[in-house]
Amino acid sequence: MLINGEPEERISINDRGLLYGDGLFETIRVIQGRPVLWKKHFQRLLRGCSALSIDISPDNVVRDLQKLLDLSPADGIVKIIISRGAGGRGYQPPENTTPTRILQFHALPADLELQAEQGIKVMICRQTIGQGTLAGHKHLNRLEQVLAAREITDGFTEGLMLNIDSELIEGTRSNLFIARNSQLFTPDLRLSGVSGVMREYLLEYLRAAGQVVSIEPIPLQSLYNADEAFLCNSVAGIWPIVRVQHTDAAYDFPIGPMTRLARSVKLADLAEPVPKTC
Amino acid sequence: MLINGEPEERISINDRGLLYGDGLFETIRVIQGRPVLWKKHFQRLLRGCSALSIDISPDNVVRDLQKLLDLSPADGIVKIIISRGAGGRGYQPPENTTPTRILQFHALPADLELQAEQGIKVMICRQTIGQGTLAGHKHLNRLEQVLAAREITDGFTEGLMLNIDSELIEGTRSNLFIARNSQLFTPDLRLSGVSGVMREYLLEYLRAAGQVVSIEPIPLQSLYNADEAFLCNSVAGIWPIVRVQHTDAAYDFPIGPMTRLARSVKLADLAEPVPKTC
Repeated sequence: MLINGEPEERISINDRGLLYGDGLFETIRVIQGRPVLWKKHFQRLLRGCSALSIDISPDNVVRDLQKLLDLSPADGIVKIIISRGAGGRGYQPPENTTPTRILQFHALPADLELQAEQGIKVMICRQTIGQGTLAGHKHLNRLEQVLAAREITDGFTEGLMLNIDSELIEGTRSNLFIARNSQLFTPDLRLSGVSGVMREYLLEYLRAAGQVVSIEPIPLQSLYNADEAFLCNSVAGIWPIVRVQHTDAAYDFPIGPMTRLARSVKLADLAEPVPKTC
Repeated sequence: MLINGEPEERISINDRGLLYGDGLFETIRVIQGRPVLWKKHFQRLLRGCSALSIDISPDNVVRDLQKLLDLSPADGIVKIIISRGAGGRGYQPPENTTPTRILQFHALPADLELQAEQGIKVMICRQTIGQGTLAGHKHLNRLEQVLAAREITDGFTEGLMLNIDSELIEGTRSNLFIARNSQLFTPDLRLSGVSGVMREYLLEYLRAAGQVVSIEPIPLQSLYNADEAFLCNSVAGIWPIVRVQHTDAAYDFPIGPMTRLARSVKLADLAEPVPKTC
């Protein structure tokens, strides 16, 4: 673990990341020492910092990442947290705070390959996801995801979250695609949810392959009527959905051609060298 | 500062309060060594812990509070943060975590008495407040309030926040009441906002005094058409609003009879001894 580039495991209780969730994070798969979709992760982090007016030095983040990768196993997960730092009277931050950079290395969860191959079972969470102007950003205000994740019971890998209008938004830690009549659909995330880097990559990849993908509101019923469905994130890659459980009803899905097309993306091919800082 | 009852200023970067805002807080005025509206603060904290399934020992919180008050000046502000503690794979918390209790003592901000006497100027924030099922609770996911508070410029004490339908919800750190034709109105907080303990107390107090108070959606225009308006929180008490600034337009308000009725509540009378734990 590195805090502001130095080995350290604790932070001040005056850090605004703790006090208000005043910050952002990225969770990045590392393969053979190289972060997967690094540019997209970094761009999203910088976009988030810009939206929150957190003034970080991009070079410092890259330097921390290089240092952490040098100290860590070749394969695993890097988590980067950027908070606004300490200071301020209540919610109002001072004009100039020094942001806190926290980097951690974690082992990969088990079963990722098996899940990608065999598909996963998901449930519909009772905890809904709210609407607000901070949608899209991967900020530290994640209580809804925590409460939804608490609902996931043994045998299920992921939970799907709805907004209060019963439209599907995303999984607790993944984005959703459904297929119907050879067309793909993924939820509109302008008011709710996190704009995943794997979703962003897949949209580019699938469209470049000539596949139609519509971004639009997706009522829960549309999932049940779908031909196939899958989830994605940049740690697991593609999770084919083979069963959706909603209270007493279960809906089964095949791993069909659309899912196989998405699964043809290999995370190892998306691992990128971290550019050296000046 | 106390963490889990011991003098300490830093916490683990694995604390879920930092990682996800997975916790709650209370900010409590202390007068002559006694916390103002302590029972209401404590009840809201326990309600929040119940909603988030954070299993705290109430006795431990009371014991920490007594210890902090013994170590601190007679007048000021106590902040209590309860997080779910450290642990878990991603969003999903483990079955049993040990919650983290953080207590801090702060000095009172300047000018509180002057503000209560002369009234304050407020602005309408561009940052809106979202809608979700965690409304009402004083949890640690407070990015919207942070961004709104950043907008408050010199000369203004507080900012008012709207939902995306341009209905008034609250101040960044206070609740709103408006008066029209001798009737009082305060926004409905079921979908957005924080249910303040001072608001709760005022509702009881005003209604016991025979005053009609309606809880309902309040469009921004209703504020401009109001006879009087005031904000409240349990640190400042009542803030009469004497001016609302919205981009180029300013609206002035008198400190009228409804505001004076609310201001007849004295925080010192609401300071309560902390009950001894068994």
